[in-house]
Amino acid sequence: MTREFNFKEGDGFSFERFISADDVKKFAEVVGDSNPIHLDESFAENSFFKKRIVHGAFLGGLISKALGMDFPGEGTVYISQNSSFKRPVFVDSNVKVEVKVTQVNAEKRRLVLDTTILNADGKVCLAGSAEVWLPD
Amino acid sequence: MTREFNFKEGDGFSFERFISADDVKKFAEVVGDSNPIHLDESFAENSFFKKRIVHGAFLGGLISKALGMDFPGEGTVYISQNSSFKRPVFVDSNVKVEVKVTQVNAEKRRLVLDTTILNADGKVCLAGSAEVWLPD
Repeated sequence: MTREFNFKEGDGFSFERFISADDVKKFAEVVGDSNPIHLDESFAENSFFKKRIVHGAFLGGLISKALGMDFPGEGTVYISQNSSFKRPVFVDSNVKVEVKVTQVNAEKRRLVLDTTILNADGKVCLAGSAEVWLPD
Repeated sequence: MTREFNFKEGDGFSFERFISADDVKKFAEVVGDSNPIHLDESFAENSFFKKRIVHGAFLGGLISKALGMDFPGEGTVYISQNSSFKRPVFVDSNVKVEVKVTQVNAEKRRLVLDTTILNADGKVCLAGSAEVWLPD
């Protein structure tokens, strides 16, 4: 059975997520990135951003979650991801994750999507794009 | 005190990492991406890749670890990351992570680096580039 491929520009999905200090600690442990800017409050106070920030790669994980579980969802194959980190996301704050179709290639069953992460003030923290493929 | 900025093209760092099924499970839990292609062996058997694969965003975390902890190391600010996922990395396998300087902007204290992840056969799984900034 061939899976349907009926997407159009503007289709998408968004969700909100609170990222706690404990989440950031667990992420640091599993990927092995224990950079003190993410984990050490007093180090962070003396750094450029003044507070602990969430790993950019954690934000990448939230985009992966949206693409793989929500839209387009199960079976999605990740082709590429480009991300610009515009502003830090601070530990213990809320983000909104948005994915939205900008290009549809029905023949190749591929989509290009804008991927955006906003902080609680609605400011863009991550701006980027993803390409995905949906096998039959 | 101004931190030294003495980098040149070709400078870099690499490390190897085994990614276990338990690592992938923990990553899925913390970012909330429990796509069955990463977690469910029988689902994966019936999928395009036939075996469970590591989240692309997990690989992004390994690049972040190299940049933030090893080279350029502590204090590095992530500006952008572009990643193409060329081949899957299978769960319970080894990868090699490489970062290597391709452009140096001493005035702005910025570097562009090639970022590459290879599987145990030496095949490129992730090809990409990062831009980073090193505050004074």
